[in-house]
Amino acid sequence: MTDTQVGIIGAGPAGLLLSYLLHLEGIDAVVLETRSREYVEQRVRAGVCEQPTVELLREIGVGARLEEEGMPHHGLSLRFDGEDHRIALTELTGKSITVYGQQEIVKDLIAAHVGKGLPVEFEVSGVALHDLDTERPRVTYTDAGGNARELTCAAIAGCDGFHGVSRPSIPGDALRTYDHQYPYAWLGVLARTPPSHEELIYTRHERGFALHSMRSPEITRLYLQVDPGEPIENWPDDRIWTELRHRLETSSADFVLRDGPVLEKSITPMRSFVVEPMRYGRLFLAGDAAHIVPPTGAKGMNLAVADVRNLARALAPLVRRNDSGLAESYSDTCLRRVWRAEHFSWFMTSMLHRDPAGDEFAERLHLSQLRYVASSTAAATSLAENYVGLPFDW
Amino acid sequence: MTDTQVGIIGAGPAGLLLSYLLHLEGIDAVVLETRSREYVEQRVRAGVCEQPTVELLREIGVGARLEEEGMPHHGLSLRFDGEDHRIALTELTGKSITVYGQQEIVKDLIAAHVGKGLPVEFEVSGVALHDLDTERPRVTYTDAGGNARELTCAAIAGCDGFHGVSRPSIPGDALRTYDHQYPYAWLGVLARTPPSHEELIYTRHERGFALHSMRSPEITRLYLQVDPGEPIENWPDDRIWTELRHRLETSSADFVLRDGPVLEKSITPMRSFVVEPMRYGRLFLAGDAAHIVPPTGAKGMNLAVADVRNLARALAPLVRRNDSGLAESYSDTCLRRVWRAEHFSWFMTSMLHRDPAGDEFAERLHLSQLRYVASSTAAATSLAENYVGLPFDW
Repeated sequence: MTDTQVGIIGAGPAGLLLSYLLHLEGIDAVVLETRSREYVEQRVRAGVCEQPTVELLREIGVGARLEEEGMPHHGLSLRFDGEDHRIALTELTGKSITVYGQQEIVKDLIAAHVGKGLPVEFEVSGVALHDLDTERPRVTYTDAGGNARELTCAAIAGCDGFHGVSRPSIPGDALRTYDHQYPYAWLGVLARTPPSHEELIYTRHERGFALHSMRSPEITRLYLQVDPGEPIENWPDDRIWTELRHRLETSSADFVLRDGPVLEKSITPMRSFVVEPMRYGRLFLAGDAAHIVPPTGAKGMNLAVADVRNLARALAPLVRRNDSGLAESYSDTCLRRVWRAEHFSWFMTSMLHRDPAGDEFAERLHLSQLRYVASSTAAATSLAENYVGLPFDW
Repeated sequence: MTDTQVGIIGAGPAGLLLSYLLHLEGIDAVVLETRSREYVEQRVRAGVCEQPTVELLREIGVGARLEEEGMPHHGLSLRFDGEDHRIALTELTGKSITVYGQQEIVKDLIAAHVGKGLPVEFEVSGVALHDLDTERPRVTYTDAGGNARELTCAAIAGCDGFHGVSRPSIPGDALRTYDHQYPYAWLGVLARTPPSHEELIYTRHERGFALHSMRSPEITRLYLQVDPGEPIENWPDDRIWTELRHRLETSSADFVLRDGPVLEKSITPMRSFVVEPMRYGRLFLAGDAAHIVPPTGAKGMNLAVADVRNLARALAPLVRRNDSGLAESYSDTCLRRVWRAEHFSWFMTSMLHRDPAGDEFAERLHLSQLRYVASSTAAATSLAENYVGLPFDW
């Protein structure tokens, strides 16, 4: 049996960042991860960092490579009716976003843990949480070597994503669940080809949404709205490029889509999901374990970062002197920002996608909203301030 | 048989204003109205004039009484979670709204017509439109004295509202219809009592929407969200006041609702409706004949004013020298602003009402949106600029 102050389930951006923030507060933590280090370091997920995320990583000294390799963006384009309308993020808000893959942040955080000898256990199995409603909750698991282990802590952080064990460890009647399924999915493509445009292009097309994005100067990231039930086998590379061209090359600007070898492709259904509260006894949920947003607003990872920043601040007094003030308000504090992001993500998603059920009234509203956002400084600023990231304490 | 340049069906604000604008352009028009002068002068409808509406009425010399008796408002309140959040319309946009009943504008316009001897025929019946796809369309009707009449014109303006004869005179396959029903209605009350607050209060309450508004320093206008199928008999005055108190008196500010004799009450279902195009041959639709908005955004009458301003500009060259350029673009020009207003009205409506089907995810989004509008200058400005009225040429 091992004692630590905080047991952290999951070595994604949320778990690793929390562990590092706690370390900076002088608090011990152990991170447990079922996957291998290689797996989490290669897992392609989000790629847009809000300014508050970038600032936090820089402040705590893990932002060096992000600063060097990340691609700062000062605007994005909304493409509809065959025309581009640029939202000048920095001009409107004084802030920017940085394109830097989530897996790169994971690599940087793991490197920081290794450098300081902070414990991250990969390839554990059979993780189970116990005694959550006491002041000494426990985690039992099997380590990579096959040894049964037990960890006793002052608090557990559930940072193990939507499919992790943390949320299901809470009694069902202690949580209220909000779940919204969208009638479309994203086919995501990672291609070895330089981006066709220096900024992101969010496209509303009569055949469906498309997004031109990137991960690096050599890697393009592209998305297509598809039916949620469609198998990836329906989408050979040729069909993907043809469809992307059809939706993206409608601009009055001379946009030509560069193609290249497809490195990875997958179809992800779109969902909004929230549980309330984000805490049960001494178990605190953070990131995807507590909420899912559709990817259109680029909010998923950034919300996780905001959660664990609040959580580190709440756990420090709890662990040090059993002061539970911030721990009590943790859920409310996070949920205010979570619902803001849920709303923004729903707004971006519904405005930019084509509803397969074909509610023509809604389609007209969405087009009018796009035209308005593209022509009103106030509306563009509203989109921009959400996109670059509202302050952590919003 | 009489000849005129423009036949106008309907003596509401749209028809009367169009007639007067055409008169100022030196163009003859005849206004036909099935109701009596007394009826249209007493008909209680909209009460909020956008700044562009006020400016237009002033410019053309029918704004004197509006200026004297109208109540300029520089802000409004959003009341939710038991607190008031003021949207400082004038501070945010430099513009204001003016509370002045639609029937007062109708009185002013009728007086202006009478003063100049411009023809408005009340209590006509059996109005029928003919030869719309020719350059000499005709209107047949029976005048107040029972005489069969025929009017030949260069153009007809359908300003006779949602239930008028103009829109149904267009072949069904020439129009595309957008129709959206909301799952709630407004119970509107006109009461003889001074307003309980100097500004409008839009309230979201768990029991449903409520609105505190006014018509004059002595007359309060109040609204309650009710079920669309409910008969007005279900709402005796006592029940109305109790429910209004329940929803409105939740503020941390010391708001006390003043009651008084109920002068009028009615239940109106909420609907969004648009036809495209707003023109068929030489028939031009304006106002409610072409589109309906739910009243939450206070846009109905103001859209009608914008329509007829465009229509007067389009008809002048058409009638004078058969130049159809602006007539051809009339529908597109109007519809851009119409869909903006449809979107804004839908936004205000869905954000402020309680969905009886109880989609809790949507409820949370609406609350988050309200909190955001109440706390972000950009979002508040966006609401405000729509509320005070976008420019006619938006």
